[in-house]
Amino acid sequence: MKLEEYLEKTAEDVDIELFRLFGSAPGELNKASAYLLLAGGKRLRPAVVMLAADIIKKGCARELLPAAIALEVTHTFTLVHDDIMDDDSQRRGVQTVHCKWDMPTAILAGDVLYAEAFELIIKCIAESDAKVLSVDILARTCVDICQGQHEDMSFETRDDVLDYEYIDMVGKKTGKLYAAAAAIGGTLAGGDVKQVQALHDWGYFSGIAFQIQDDLIDLMTTTDKSGKDQGSDLSEGKQTIVAIKAREAGLDLSKFRKPDLSEAEIKEAIDMLEKAGVIADVRKTAQDYVTRAKDMLTALPECEERRLLSEITDYFVTRGF
Amino acid sequence: MKLEEYLEKTAEDVDIELFRLFGSAPGELNKASAYLLLAGGKRLRPAVVMLAADIIKKGCARELLPAAIALEVTHTFTLVHDDIMDDDSQRRGVQTVHCKWDMPTAILAGDVLYAEAFELIIKCIAESDAKVLSVDILARTCVDICQGQHEDMSFETRDDVLDYEYIDMVGKKTGKLYAAAAAIGGTLAGGDVKQVQALHDWGYFSGIAFQIQDDLIDLMTTTDKSGKDQGSDLSEGKQTIVAIKAREAGLDLSKFRKPDLSEAEIKEAIDMLEKAGVIADVRKTAQDYVTRAKDMLTALPECEERRLLSEITDYFVTRGF
Repeated sequence: MKLEEYLEKTAEDVDIELFRLFGSAPGELNKASAYLLLAGGKRLRPAVVMLAADIIKKGCARELLPAAIALEVTHTFTLVHDDIMDDDSQRRGVQTVHCKWDMPTAILAGDVLYAEAFELIIKCIAESDAKVLSVDILARTCVDICQGQHEDMSFETRDDVLDYEYIDMVGKKTGKLYAAAAAIGGTLAGGDVKQVQALHDWGYFSGIAFQIQDDLIDLMTTTDKSGKDQGSDLSEGKQTIVAIKAREAGLDLSKFRKPDLSEAEIKEAIDMLEKAGVIADVRKTAQDYVTRAKDMLTALPECEERRLLSEITDYFVTRGF
Repeated sequence: MKLEEYLEKTAEDVDIELFRLFGSAPGELNKASAYLLLAGGKRLRPAVVMLAADIIKKGCARELLPAAIALEVTHTFTLVHDDIMDDDSQRRGVQTVHCKWDMPTAILAGDVLYAEAFELIIKCIAESDAKVLSVDILARTCVDICQGQHEDMSFETRDDVLDYEYIDMVGKKTGKLYAAAAAIGGTLAGGDVKQVQALHDWGYFSGIAFQIQDDLIDLMTTTDKSGKDQGSDLSEGKQTIVAIKAREAGLDLSKFRKPDLSEAEIKEAIDMLEKAGVIADVRKTAQDYVTRAKDMLTALPECEERRLLSEITDYFVTRGF
């Protein structure tokens, strides 16, 4: 099966289950909780849970659909709370929860999703020992994500962030949830410690590559393609891997730190960065993490699902939006 | 052992463990997470976990200390988030987290505690099946608490709340966490379904009685004794059980709905409420829940810990602050 087909099929299954579980829960708070969850998304984390599970025990992914959903629910809870902290107004093409409702409701909506993620892990058909391990992985992951978000916010007041600090931050904020998705899928399917560790590390490195690509997309992809303002990180002076490597290369991007960059200004910045070799350097860094991620997969049995997982890593750094 | 002694001893054990676990975690976010947790408190929920466990299996409570801590951590997470929503500035004699730090840090601090509560359940020395059940209980409880807080906020824009709505709200907001404390203690100690249900229901009814008493304390206990503004619910026109029963009795309390009530005004309100039989009626309602709670305990083996649990229920409605 092609990766694209697999992801489409999984997203469909996940959406059906999400609507079944969250689509008609009564009351305003449940509506607010379900809102962003049902607003679409690529459902990549559920796909990772299911692929990891099938690598360990072919055909078991279907029984672990609740755990796959749990990872999407966890991801959504972090988005709802992040949107409050960053006071963002749009997400996935819809209003953010605290804008559509209000801040208190958005805090509670996130908190409800948070609990439901744990409930969904428990709902799976799997050994109790595996569920206990999975709850532990998910809980630790949530702590890491919060730490990552806190570091990310603390970077806003700094202009001396080093690349290892950036990698550590995105590792926590993005890498750890992909790591958890793969590790939980593997654990619930009955994987041994070595297999689960390999899956975890695959997810961690892939997630870092994903985030580096996100930073490139922000700069390189036009607004009509990505749905996000092109160059917004540049305009806000955000400490992305691009900004950090530009500073290391002696480039001064401060003139682009202003609202409403024109197309010409963005092009100028990209040209500067390309000439100085920054873009190539960032792409190489992403590619290094792709290689490290894929190396991890050699510890796992060769199968179609392993190939698809490997292709997901490639997809993370080739996607244009 | 006297209840007072037992509670003091448990609070000491809990405090030592809380300081060991949270007292020296590095980084600003961990400091913000630990802050309210280490600011004191009666540690009633941990005591309930441990008593429930010892009723089921004498002497096992010590091994379940992490679960006892988990309930205090859960309670604290809800306080940190509630304080943001209500924009309260003081709690347990210290600044609230969002005032001492900021709103984003307080959201994350609560989210970190949330995850750590689940980690602590997993840390206990207990059967995996029992841990899975306990995680499920805790997760469902968190959803209920959020629903209760949302209902409580929605009552602020209403003046027609009925007593059954109030009981349902406080049942979720306060009762369910005491229910979870008792049920999780019993579950991890190896209790059967009937015993766990009895413990759960004891906690639920006791928690409702606790909250009714809280409403009476707000009205009747002077500020220097309780540390809270006397009559603040009255002044804010809050839909407490006192306000609801006053309305049912045909009393108009609207003249007291204003800032900075004087001692004389509070006394006038209390006199009105006492004359109309409202205070007695509220006390009777609390006492009904005490009776229902204690009835549940008859399904459990007779022992010192069961007596202490029963005395906790009495304490909930006799405490003056």
